[in-house]
Amino acid sequence: METDEVAEQVLMQERLGGITSPRGFRASGLHCGVKRAKKDLALIVSDVPASCAGTFTQNRVPAAPVVVDKEQIARSPYIRAIVVNSGNANACTGVRGMEDARAMIGATARARRIHESEVLVSSTGVIGQFLPMEKILQGITAAGQSLSKEGGEGAAEAILTTDTFTKQVALETAVGGVPVTLGGIAKGSGMIAPNMATMLAFVTTDAAISPELLGKLLKRSVDRSFNRITVDGDTSTNDMAIVLANGLAGNRMLREEADPGSSEFSQALEHLLVRLSKMIVMDGEGATKFVEVIVEGASSEADAVKAARAIASSSLVKTAINGEDANWGRILAAVGNAGIPFRAEETEISLGHVPILRRNYRIDFSEEEAARVLHEKEITIRVQLNGGPGSATFWTCDLSKEYVAINANYRT
Amino acid sequence: METDEVAEQVLMQERLGGITSPRGFRASGLHCGVKRAKKDLALIVSDVPASCAGTFTQNRVPAAPVVVDKEQIARSPYIRAIVVNSGNANACTGVRGMEDARAMIGATARARRIHESEVLVSSTGVIGQFLPMEKILQGITAAGQSLSKEGGEGAAEAILTTDTFTKQVALETAVGGVPVTLGGIAKGSGMIAPNMATMLAFVTTDAAISPELLGKLLKRSVDRSFNRITVDGDTSTNDMAIVLANGLAGNRMLREEADPGSSEFSQALEHLLVRLSKMIVMDGEGATKFVEVIVEGASSEADAVKAARAIASSSLVKTAINGEDANWGRILAAVGNAGIPFRAEETEISLGHVPILRRNYRIDFSEEEAARVLHEKEITIRVQLNGGPGSATFWTCDLSKEYVAINANYRT
Repeated sequence: METDEVAEQVLMQERLGGITSPRGFRASGLHCGVKRAKKDLALIVSDVPASCAGTFTQNRVPAAPVVVDKEQIARSPYIRAIVVNSGNANACTGVRGMEDARAMIGATARARRIHESEVLVSSTGVIGQFLPMEKILQGITAAGQSLSKEGGEGAAEAILTTDTFTKQVALETAVGGVPVTLGGIAKGSGMIAPNMATMLAFVTTDAAISPELLGKLLKRSVDRSFNRITVDGDTSTNDMAIVLANGLAGNRMLREEADPGSSEFSQALEHLLVRLSKMIVMDGEGATKFVEVIVEGASSEADAVKAARAIASSSLVKTAINGEDANWGRILAAVGNAGIPFRAEETEISLGHVPILRRNYRIDFSEEEAARVLHEKEITIRVQLNGGPGSATFWTCDLSKEYVAINANYRT
Repeated sequence: METDEVAEQVLMQERLGGITSPRGFRASGLHCGVKRAKKDLALIVSDVPASCAGTFTQNRVPAAPVVVDKEQIARSPYIRAIVVNSGNANACTGVRGMEDARAMIGATARARRIHESEVLVSSTGVIGQFLPMEKILQGITAAGQSLSKEGGEGAAEAILTTDTFTKQVALETAVGGVPVTLGGIAKGSGMIAPNMATMLAFVTTDAAISPELLGKLLKRSVDRSFNRITVDGDTSTNDMAIVLANGLAGNRMLREEADPGSSEFSQALEHLLVRLSKMIVMDGEGATKFVEVIVEGASSEADAVKAARAIASSSLVKTAINGEDANWGRILAAVGNAGIPFRAEETEISLGHVPILRRNYRIDFSEEEAARVLHEKEITIRVQLNGGPGSATFWTCDLSKEYVAINANYRT
């Protein structure tokens, strides 16, 4: 009992740091010239081959790096390097785009003297333009020479596009009594929608775990983190989340969910991805408020997810939050659009601690109290359907005039 | 052959007018006090019982009038009056809302000395507040005394909420050689989304047609008109489209689709609903541009509808149109999210007459020409998937800062 409690405490122990926090990982981030001045090339390496798992966009027009990485992992799930460029997505670029993605892998393998099968590639930025390969290949050589433990910060910067801050998390847990570290970086911030491996996220860990179990745990964690956030309902052609686990922590290799330590690792991974997800939403394009949507009392978890997604995706709810308006009607109508069975007259809705709708449409809250809650930067919408055991949480942001400005005039 | 051609010409003959254009219909619209100053109560009556059909919101939280009207039509599909108020939706109002909706029916029946089973009721406006019944009942009495052929315009005005103009259409066709008139009014303009009987629309006709066939033709026409427009992807609790057909044109009663004249009537009804649909989109909240999305070459019509809906619903496409940007990548990525099979490298995209994407990602259009097309108020996006016979058209508007302003600050 006591050890469990300690493990629970350690699980929640976040540290300053990111992808280079786990043992045996180094990184670098630099400017190679895809963007005008900002960092645009990141390299993440493990000193030894690492078990690898990934989830990828479900968009039917996947970018070249997505196609190539799926092939790479299917061929051999042991990876030592991930090369990422921002500023150009290498999407909708046909045969030449595929060649360019493979050339990035080749250059990285040469720079690190590793096998091409041990390299993944990722790109983010504008669609439909060919990569400036000369600059990128020079950049890869330079990145290979500047890898360091301190380079995680630079890599976190180099993968950003319209993001306004870097997204990094590191945390420690214990796997079978052995201390294990996880680190992660991610980028948003438009084109974020549930139901796929959203945006870019790279996670490193020194845990020893088989690629198969890692894939299983990653999928589940992504379903409860990146797949539960939405900014604008659109989905990129380039989304991916990749985990590398190099085993240097020295724990006994995790192979099955029943293995001691598996559930601790799984919880830590989910916690880390949820933290990155929230950061992405907080940095949503034009976002002025962070919104947590909690649905309880649905007949199943699947129904709760549907209801929470409908609320989090509703333009009318998101503009009401932007306008700081306690509009329970829009929230209830959004649930009505979710396609799940529920009884409106049994439904209760709260904003923060203020109940704005009680059963049988009773409304007797203080407008001032609601206004105070809505004036905060972080707002919780809680919907109690009183119809079963299913619950789910979604994260989103408000819809502001700035979102439109960013996406209408992003070239100027 | 010659008569067919004449019929075809007549089918397309639009006239000035609206719901009082067909024989035997009168209407009135007045201010009763739900809104501060604008008209807020409409009454539409037929001199004789009319065959009636309706389609209603699929939102699981239907407003009281929706619940009541479905019961009314199920009990007896012969209707003589529709009473509509704007300014208050009578939605989420529980048992008292149901009583109020029935009281509106009772008052209308007394005012017109007809049976309660011959009356429908409709409401639109704010959610979650009780109707000011005293004002409404007085209004109904007054409306019953001021019915006229000229009252169609006033009724069209009285059903509006945030709309900026009235939406009226009248057209003539020939049914089995007999001239028949159809008229319609509608209101938008937020909360417009496909896949349901959207917003409010009331259609009158002097054609003689059975309620069963009328219902069948209405459903099909709504699927190709109101269900193919989208402003913000949200769906109201109050949406309904109602048709009354009083038979005073004197054509032989249409009972089957194979009856002579059925297809003429069906085409006219669809044409009228498409015209109303386009007006609703043009008046979309904050809309600065009207966008027609045509998808061709899908493997089926159902797939073409999915692709067209995905494009028309994409915030990123809609903000690009707002910013007058020829962003074919966002259009292609939206199709990629539609969940249909297609080959990106076979896809061609045009804006107006300008091909912005050719097969195999060939891009060689003039930016100036594209800019000219995008500067227009009406823009056509044509997507050729080159993969089959399926095609579909959707209508939408751009997403502007004004949309956010209207929906964030609508109370002030």
